[in-house]
Amino acid sequence: MSEHISGKSRFQKRGGAAFSIPDLYNGIVQRDRSSLARAITLIESNAEQHFSLAQELLQKVLPKSGKSLRIGITGVPGAGKSTFIEAFGMHLCNLGFRVAVLAVDPSSSISGGSILGDKTRMEQLSRHPNAFIRPSPSEGKLGGVHRKTRETMLLCEASGFDVILVETVGVGQSEAIIRDMVDFFLLLVLTGAGDELQGMKKGIMELVDAIVVNKADGDNKPLALKTKKEYNQILHFLHPATSGWRTKAYTCSSLYLEGISEIWNVILEFEKNTKASRMFNERRKIQNKKWLYSMISDQLHYRFFQQSEVKSVLPRLERAVMDGEKSVSAAVFELFNES
Amino acid sequence: MSEHISGKSRFQKRGGAAFSIPDLYNGIVQRDRSSLARAITLIESNAEQHFSLAQELLQKVLPKSGKSLRIGITGVPGAGKSTFIEAFGMHLCNLGFRVAVLAVDPSSSISGGSILGDKTRMEQLSRHPNAFIRPSPSEGKLGGVHRKTRETMLLCEASGFDVILVETVGVGQSEAIIRDMVDFFLLLVLTGAGDELQGMKKGIMELVDAIVVNKADGDNKPLALKTKKEYNQILHFLHPATSGWRTKAYTCSSLYLEGISEIWNVILEFEKNTKASRMFNERRKIQNKKWLYSMISDQLHYRFFQQSEVKSVLPRLERAVMDGEKSVSAAVFELFNES
Repeated sequence: MSEHISGKSRFQKRGGAAFSIPDLYNGIVQRDRSSLARAITLIESNAEQHFSLAQELLQKVLPKSGKSLRIGITGVPGAGKSTFIEAFGMHLCNLGFRVAVLAVDPSSSISGGSILGDKTRMEQLSRHPNAFIRPSPSEGKLGGVHRKTRETMLLCEASGFDVILVETVGVGQSEAIIRDMVDFFLLLVLTGAGDELQGMKKGIMELVDAIVVNKADGDNKPLALKTKKEYNQILHFLHPATSGWRTKAYTCSSLYLEGISEIWNVILEFEKNTKASRMFNERRKIQNKKWLYSMISDQLHYRFFQQSEVKSVLPRLERAVMDGEKSVSAAVFELFNES
Repeated sequence: MSEHISGKSRFQKRGGAAFSIPDLYNGIVQRDRSSLARAITLIESNAEQHFSLAQELLQKVLPKSGKSLRIGITGVPGAGKSTFIEAFGMHLCNLGFRVAVLAVDPSSSISGGSILGDKTRMEQLSRHPNAFIRPSPSEGKLGGVHRKTRETMLLCEASGFDVILVETVGVGQSEAIIRDMVDFFLLLVLTGAGDELQGMKKGIMELVDAIVVNKADGDNKPLALKTKKEYNQILHFLHPATSGWRTKAYTCSSLYLEGISEIWNVILEFEKNTKASRMFNERRKIQNKKWLYSMISDQLHYRFFQQSEVKSVLPRLERAVMDGEKSVSAAVFELFNES
C-alpha cells in the first residue's frame, strides 16, 4: 500500500483541513481524542477514496491494538442498557480505567437509529475524561456496521483504551456477530424471564457469559431475585457460551449502583480463567479468522448481486422458485450461466 | 434445457442399460420403485454430465411434488432414532400411508457414515410394501448432501409418498438446514435432560416442534416422565420454532409401541393448525427462497475458493490475520485484487 503514503495519504474533512495518515496515527497513539474521532470518521466513510486510506491507517495501528478487554452488552429495548453502561462505565473510570463505548445498531440505516450510543443518554460518563462514547455508524455496503465497529475497536485500543463496551439491541440478528467480536458477552434483562426472552433472539442464552437482571431495587427486588433463580435453572440445561466457564445470572441496580462492582469482578475472573486456559487468545484468533471469511463472503455476494444481469433475472427466478414452478438447482444454473 | 431432451436424455448405469428421462419420469409417477431408486442415483451422481439430466428430470416432476408431509427427526447417537422410525413408520404404513425414510449424514464423506438409514436397522419397515428407505447420499461439491436430500424428497413426493421422514444426527451443523427442509421437526431424547442437551447443537430446542423422550418403558418410565416435565419447564421460557404452535415434550416407547399414535396425532394437529393459519405454505415458500440463496452462496464460494490464485495466497493471509499481523480488510483487499 506504499502508493498511498505520499500525497494521497490525506483525508479531507468537508470544508476542513487535510490530515496525513502518519499525523492521524501519531495523534491516536498519543491518546489525542480528536485524532481518534477523526480516524473513526475515516473508517466510517462510505466514500471509495477513503477506504484505502482507512486500510493504511489500520495496518499501522494493528501492532498497538488488541490489549483491551472487549465486552459486549445486549438486551431488549427498555432493559436499561444506557443506565447500566453509565453506572458500569463510571465504576471502571473511577477505578482508573479508560473506557470506550461503541454502539452497534444494525437498523440505523432504516430507522435512523433506535439505539444511539449518544452522549445525551450517558450524561455523567460522557463528561468523564477517561470515557469515549461513539454512536453507531450508519450502514453502507459490505457488512458496514459490523466492519466499522470492529475497526473502530482497533483504533480505540491503539489509543490506549483498557475496556471497550460494545452495546447492541437484543432483538435482531446482531448478537452472533457481536459474540464474535468480544471476549465477554453480557445479557441485560428485566424481571419475568419467560415473557422477556420471547422478544429476544433465539439461542441468545447460549451466546452469553453472564445474564444480569437489572433494576433489582425497591419493590422490584424480590421479583428480580426470583428471576435470577429462574434464569439459573434454565442455564443449567444449556450450553455455556465459553468452554470452561459457567454462565450464571446476577442481579444489579444501575440506579443505586448495587451489584455493579460484583459484575466487574465476575468479568475479571472470566478474564483470568480464560487467559490461563488460553481460551482467551484462542477465541480472538478464531474471531479474526471468522471475520476474514465473513468479509470474503460479503464481497462475493456484493459483487455478484450488483451485476445488472443478475438484478434483472433474479426477481423472476425467486418468484418461480417460491411458487414451486422451478427447481432451485435449475434457477441457480440459469443465474450463473447468464451472469 | 431443451437440448437435453433428445439423445442426451439418457442416463447410463455402470454396465447397465440406458434410461431416458421421460421413461424415468413415467416410472416415478407410476410409483415404480426401481425407477425411483434409479432417479435418486442420478440426483446423487457427482458426475458433471448427470447434473443437467437430473435437473431436467426435477423440472418435470416438480408439478407432482409438494404434497407430502415432511417430518424431520433428530437426536444424539443412542437416542433410538432407528427404533423410533421403525415403530413410527410401521404405524403409518399400517394406517395405509406410503412412507419414505431419507437419512442425512453430513459426515458421511469422512466417516463413511455414522448413520446409515439402511435396511438392516429397520428390518420390519424395510420389508413393508408402503415403505421406501434410502441411506444418506455421499458428499460431493456444492452443499452436496443437503441438496441431494431435498431433491430426493421431491422425487419421492412425485412418486406418491404421503410422509417423508428425514433423519439426521443431532450433534452437527445440520439441524438448521433440516429445519429448513421439513414441515415438522421432532427431537428424540433420552432421560436426563441436562446432560444430554450438552451433546446437542446450541439452540436446538428452539428449532423443533416436539421433543419426544424415548424408551419410556419398564424401570425407565418414571424417569422419562420426570424428564418430560423438565423439558416442558425449559420450553416454557424458549421461543417456539413455529409461530402459533407450542412446542411440548412427550414420552414414548418405541419398543412397546406406546405413545406412537399420540405423536402422530400431535403432528396431524400441527398440520391442521398451520394449514389453517397459512403458516404451512408460507414456510414452504420461505424454505424455497432460503434454499435458492444458500445454493447461490455455495456456488459463489465454490467458484472463488477453487481458483488457484486464491488457493495459493489464502493460507498466508489467514495466518497473518489470525496472528493480528494484518487487518482483515487489508487481507480481503489483497485477495480480491489478486484473484
